[in-house]
Amino acid sequence: MQQKDSWLLPEGIEELLPQEAAYLESLRQRILQLFTCWGYELVIPPMIDFIDSLLTGSGHDLDLQTFQFTDQISGKTLGLRADMTPQVARMDAHQLKRECPTRLCYVGTVLHTRGDPLEKTRSPMQIGAELYGHAGIESDVEVICLMLEMLAQSGLLHVHLDLGHVGIFRALSRQAGMDQNQEGLLFDILQRKAKPELEELMAELDINEDVKAMLLKLPELNGGKEIIKKATSVLAKADEQVKLALANLEAVAEQLSNRFPSLPISFDLAELRGYHYHTGVVFAAFVPTIGREIARGGRYDNIGAVFGRARPATGFSADLKLLALLGKQTAQDQANQRILAPYQIDDSLTEKIRDLRAQGHCVIQRLPGQIGDAEELACTAILELDQQTWVVSTLKNKIWK
Amino acid sequence: MQQKDSWLLPEGIEELLPQEAAYLESLRQRILQLFTCWGYELVIPPMIDFIDSLLTGSGHDLDLQTFQFTDQISGKTLGLRADMTPQVARMDAHQLKRECPTRLCYVGTVLHTRGDPLEKTRSPMQIGAELYGHAGIESDVEVICLMLEMLAQSGLLHVHLDLGHVGIFRALSRQAGMDQNQEGLLFDILQRKAKPELEELMAELDINEDVKAMLLKLPELNGGKEIIKKATSVLAKADEQVKLALANLEAVAEQLSNRFPSLPISFDLAELRGYHYHTGVVFAAFVPTIGREIARGGRYDNIGAVFGRARPATGFSADLKLLALLGKQTAQDQANQRILAPYQIDDSLTEKIRDLRAQGHCVIQRLPGQIGDAEELACTAILELDQQTWVVSTLKNKIWK
Repeated sequence: MQQKDSWLLPEGIEELLPQEAAYLESLRQRILQLFTCWGYELVIPPMIDFIDSLLTGSGHDLDLQTFQFTDQISGKTLGLRADMTPQVARMDAHQLKRECPTRLCYVGTVLHTRGDPLEKTRSPMQIGAELYGHAGIESDVEVICLMLEMLAQSGLLHVHLDLGHVGIFRALSRQAGMDQNQEGLLFDILQRKAKPELEELMAELDINEDVKAMLLKLPELNGGKEIIKKATSVLAKADEQVKLALANLEAVAEQLSNRFPSLPISFDLAELRGYHYHTGVVFAAFVPTIGREIARGGRYDNIGAVFGRARPATGFSADLKLLALLGKQTAQDQANQRILAPYQIDDSLTEKIRDLRAQGHCVIQRLPGQIGDAEELACTAILELDQQTWVVSTLKNKIWK
Repeated sequence: MQQKDSWLLPEGIEELLPQEAAYLESLRQRILQLFTCWGYELVIPPMIDFIDSLLTGSGHDLDLQTFQFTDQISGKTLGLRADMTPQVARMDAHQLKRECPTRLCYVGTVLHTRGDPLEKTRSPMQIGAELYGHAGIESDVEVICLMLEMLAQSGLLHVHLDLGHVGIFRALSRQAGMDQNQEGLLFDILQRKAKPELEELMAELDINEDVKAMLLKLPELNGGKEIIKKATSVLAKADEQVKLALANLEAVAEQLSNRFPSLPISFDLAELRGYHYHTGVVFAAFVPTIGREIARGGRYDNIGAVFGRARPATGFSADLKLLALLGKQTAQDQANQRILAPYQIDDSLTEKIRDLRAQGHCVIQRLPGQIGDAEELACTAILELDQQTWVVSTLKNKIWK
């Protein structure tokens, strides 16, 4: 690389300049405050970890997305975290070891070797919350509500919610007696919503005809509230697991509708997002205008097993940078002034500046011989001496060049 | 690695559990608020960067400390940042390009392949502030004051300040007519305060005897206020650059003493911390009880040149994790309650919980069938129905198991 190019950033890697950074930071603080008020305790997982820890549980699919390098100290392979949830699960399982439900939240940069084709970034700032130790749908409802409050806090008000349940696909595969290979093939086809391939595979497989018919209809089971009724009839010959999953989905949707009456909820029973580690209800929030997920989550029971302790778990995550970008960037609170003070070695001036800063004002002290007036420094007021007293004059009332 | 070990963390890599994380986060927010009130704007540099960008300017010495790996997209070498200052300098030089003084601040994890032998961590959380575009000592004084305020904010009150000036060593080497090799050798000897080696080197070198005498006495020039006087006499035959450096050091110390009358200040004219990129006043804060630097900085003019723009610059940085660890962890503000609410599908309960959270209280809603009472959940109060109204009862007044 030539010296002249040393300002170049790698593709999908961003730096945030003052305006964006200030907005991101204020949103970060507001969301963490929200999480705290719901009883979710902040944890800070490490930026790098042994690769074996990173790729357990919900990290299984992340092998190719994780930057890897050798630890000079241990000789083992380290990875840059591509997802913080396995790390947070480890804290719950290995460090905290509480019996009662544990609510944790986190925020931090994650890195991806390639990045999602839809997302331009390779370094999202992952923010999320997890609830460990409770298996009922009440905890799923709680985390979905918290996710919706987080989106509202971000200024994203017209959000759609998509609900699914990976237990339906799992139970049908089991009922069909498919082996792991066949199940993987079917999963892949459903992911791509490739109907002709699905028909081909069903024609080939030697499985119960009832289950075949149900699997063929799975991709059609997406839409509004009516889908649960339709599914109950279409999946009538499925086992109890499927019926329980449907009942749970319906109950979750009903509780959410009570709390957020104007929230559009849709169902997609062939949606298998995070299928490899999810075990129950899965959900995603969309903004219609951009047509992509802005937050997602679901139940992933027993994820802590690899760290020595299996616990029910449910949670969600989002990219804080994306939330900041999409959210209504309503004007920041301008109550506090940005004041330019003169340079002068004078105790009364020093004291006045200290007081103003203690009150939360931003005071920039002019430096001797510096370039730039109040306007260039984006100041809204100046500090000046008026009859031996230092006073703040807002710039509207002044002729100021 | 065996499955049973998947909770192991690499050496020098930490995870922060709820209590530590909450304290770190509150300190982070208080320090950023302090920086903002002084007019320092937050920027967020990327976690990874092309290695050539990371190792420019003040990053020169960081080659061996930087984790490196290949970018699958560009085929170039990427590095995990080991220091954020070159990245911040790039933003000033390449993105902001302002003529007037620019004040920037930052906070984030940096990673070191080995870590300092004194510091146990390989992942400090670097926090710092930089002032670009002003060459006078007034900006040095400003950043040192801000550093001291940051330490006070962290609860570190008995801080010592160490002042030096790399310009003195640079000017003497120049005056001696040493080549780069000789200067490097001398630098190394002074760093290690190896007096016998210094005498040996001076005996070997064919340089002016006056300069030789001054270089030999450099390591003795450390101590209190009297050192400036001593240095003026010892370095009487040095050139104007050295005299200017001494005058500047004295003026900086005097201004600091005016603002912080009880601050112990010492001088060390052979201290060459950050010598490869520093160009003027250098400083470090110590806590006597632990006998090591807790924050450091100095002037490093023209660091932006490699990014297309040479500007004067001065700034400081510290490890936020270390500040949180050392600072007096005074009890957090307990004004807000931590309240356990019952589980019940009831609009008036939902509304009450929403109100309490909006007031900044933490409300944890009990989940059906969960293990753990208010005490185990660390709650200070419960929400209960009293004559059809939801009321908060603090637990002191209740018999609660």
